Amino acid sequence: MSKTNYTLSPLGFLHSPLTSREGAPKQGYEGAPNAWLEVNEAFAKGLEGIAVGDEVILITWFHQSRRDVLQVHPRGDTHNPLAGVFATRSPDRPNPLGLHRVRVLAIDGRRLHVGPLEAIDGTPVVDIKPVLAQSRDA
Amino acid sequence: MSKTNYTLSPLGFLHSPLTSREGAPKQGYEGAPNAWLEVNEAFAKGLEGIAVGDEVILITWFHQSRRDVLQVHPRGDTHNPLAGVFATRSPDRPNPLGLHRVRVLAIDGRRLHVGPLEAIDGTPVVDIKPVLAQSRDA
Repeated sequence: MSKTNYTLSPLGFLHSPLTSREGAPKQGYEGAPNAWLEVNEAFAKGLEGIAVGDEVILITWFHQSRRDVLQVHPRGDTHNPLAGVFATRSPDRPNPLGLHRVRVLAIDGRRLHVGPLEAIDGTPVVDIKPVLAQSRDA
Repeated sequence: MSKTNYTLSPLGFLHSPLTSREGAPKQGYEGAPNAWLEVNEAFAKGLEGIAVGDEVILITWFHQSRRDVLQVHPRGDTHNPLAGVFATRSPDRPNPLGLHRVRVLAIDGRRLHVGPLEAIDGTPVVDIKPVLAQSRDA
């Protein structure tokens, strides 16, 4: 079994009116605002072909998460029995990756206006993928 | 702008009859086989609550990918004009994360039989998430 680790570099960061985990909706469709994603110059060429109106999937790095948590009460509600983090969308998990399907609302050079998005201000984005029309996934 | 990098640890690895990128379908729905995901003992408690029949999203690390690629011919077909990798599902991309929606077909302790899945044998899995019934994402 490999002990290798893998290193992610941020493509850019989110600018959002949401400033704390406590104040943020748990999912985008639960009333989240829009946000700007500013992609670093070094990766700007990778954006070519993304158009206003597209739906894309952002993968974020939940930089405020705890990584030593394996079980949680879903939605932070202690009335819910403990569940494994991989059966939940808890941001606290061994590899704290977030998955967000958003619409591209505007493009200004290497800045994308996207939403709705529940991730907080300053969250790093590590990947952007198109939604595949034919796909059942993501 | 932060220069921070983030470190992923593999949760486990895939066992698949697919042994090369060249022989693998580009998407799961394009005739991919099923695979076994063997989760490391250290993370097994995180699986509690996942049941046979569930649909889950696996995030993989495409360990054979090139990370210095920002533009590709979609689907490797040079007839397709060059596009930014973030407008494609190319495994070659700065942070080579794969996104796969699969069904859980069987569970044997910390081994999950899942599919269909286009990732090749030995691919590390870095996250597992439930599909949210209400969600438009992933």
